[in-house]
Amino acid sequence: MKVLLIGANGTIGKLVKQNLASRHEIIEVGKTSGQFQVDISSESSIRQLFEQVGKVDAIVVTAGDVHFGAMKEMTSDQFTLGLHSKLLGQVNITLIGQHYLNEGGSITLTSGSLSHNPTFGGTNFSTVNAAVDGFVKGAALELKQDRRINVVSPTVLEESWHIYGAAFPGLEAAPGAKVALAYQRSVEGFETGQEYRVW
Amino acid sequence: MKVLLIGANGTIGKLVKQNLASRHEIIEVGKTSGQFQVDISSESSIRQLFEQVGKVDAIVVTAGDVHFGAMKEMTSDQFTLGLHSKLLGQVNITLIGQHYLNEGGSITLTSGSLSHNPTFGGTNFSTVNAAVDGFVKGAALELKQDRRINVVSPTVLEESWHIYGAAFPGLEAAPGAKVALAYQRSVEGFETGQEYRVW
Repeated sequence: MKVLLIGANGTIGKLVKQNLASRHEIIEVGKTSGQFQVDISSESSIRQLFEQVGKVDAIVVTAGDVHFGAMKEMTSDQFTLGLHSKLLGQVNITLIGQHYLNEGGSITLTSGSLSHNPTFGGTNFSTVNAAVDGFVKGAALELKQDRRINVVSPTVLEESWHIYGAAFPGLEAAPGAKVALAYQRSVEGFETGQEYRVW
Repeated sequence: MKVLLIGANGTIGKLVKQNLASRHEIIEVGKTSGQFQVDISSESSIRQLFEQVGKVDAIVVTAGDVHFGAMKEMTSDQFTLGLHSKLLGQVNITLIGQHYLNEGGSITLTSGSLSHNPTFGGTNFSTVNAAVDGFVKGAALELKQDRRINVVSPTVLEESWHIYGAAFPGLEAAPGAKVALAYQRSVEGFETGQEYRVW
């Protein structure tokens, strides 16, 4: 399969590539790295990416910025970061990408466990992750000709625990390879509208 | 209690008012009607509202626009409608309103059952409703001094079934008075971070 991997150079993106690369052709996309570049917060940049790449069998997104900080001081602009990057970015990749997806192809988005396990400072994450999960539930009804869409909802990865772990007292990290399996399940599997929780 | 009711002239707003009015002082806010006007998609308009109204004991939001339409033709701008009105509108009311909420006061937002029961044409609803639910989970951790926040997630009301019912084959409408009870439970009750589903 021809797999468009947006966010290929991130922690999760690299693990997904490692899982998929031996069986599929991976087109690596990054903000500044990879074979192609995209700014997912820009609709025109996403449109340009698909015009360059053309038709694919799978779209995997492991990219998106979100604001972390206390709600008491949070501004609307800070909150908008997550809405326009991780949320609207993934939505726009789907809205535009659906027209570049081969029959039987799949889209795999990324949310995260803060949708259900909130933490102090994480309101933007809780909102955006839940939103992506909700979007996928709705979008799955509307993709036709066996096209599928799922979302992977990981907790903090073992590989990132030293950075983020302190914000999640009493929670367990997930091995990166296990998170990558959820992406494989979506890309190579048969289900649609699913939220694959790795937590 | 002094209750700020944003969306007082809508179908749900009127039912909430009917439930609460005999026991509380209701400040009615609408886009064009009510004692005060607000455009919830505008941060400055929300800020102006709170500067005019001052401190309150409860904030209830039953307002917010969302786009309904097939995903195949949906544009980013159409999708952004729900993000900037029903989602960011309620978020901004919370971010600004938290500083005008008396100790022990509550915020009650509105999502809806499409977060979990998607329908064709409803991707913007599924996304925005799930996002509001997620936001409330996170925000509840950060409000201090017994301040609470909950969300009411109604299905289609019996009062609106003749307009929207066709999009929900096999689902049941909820009596408006029952939906209003969920708002009462949030305003007069003791819980926080709850999603009161009326479906």
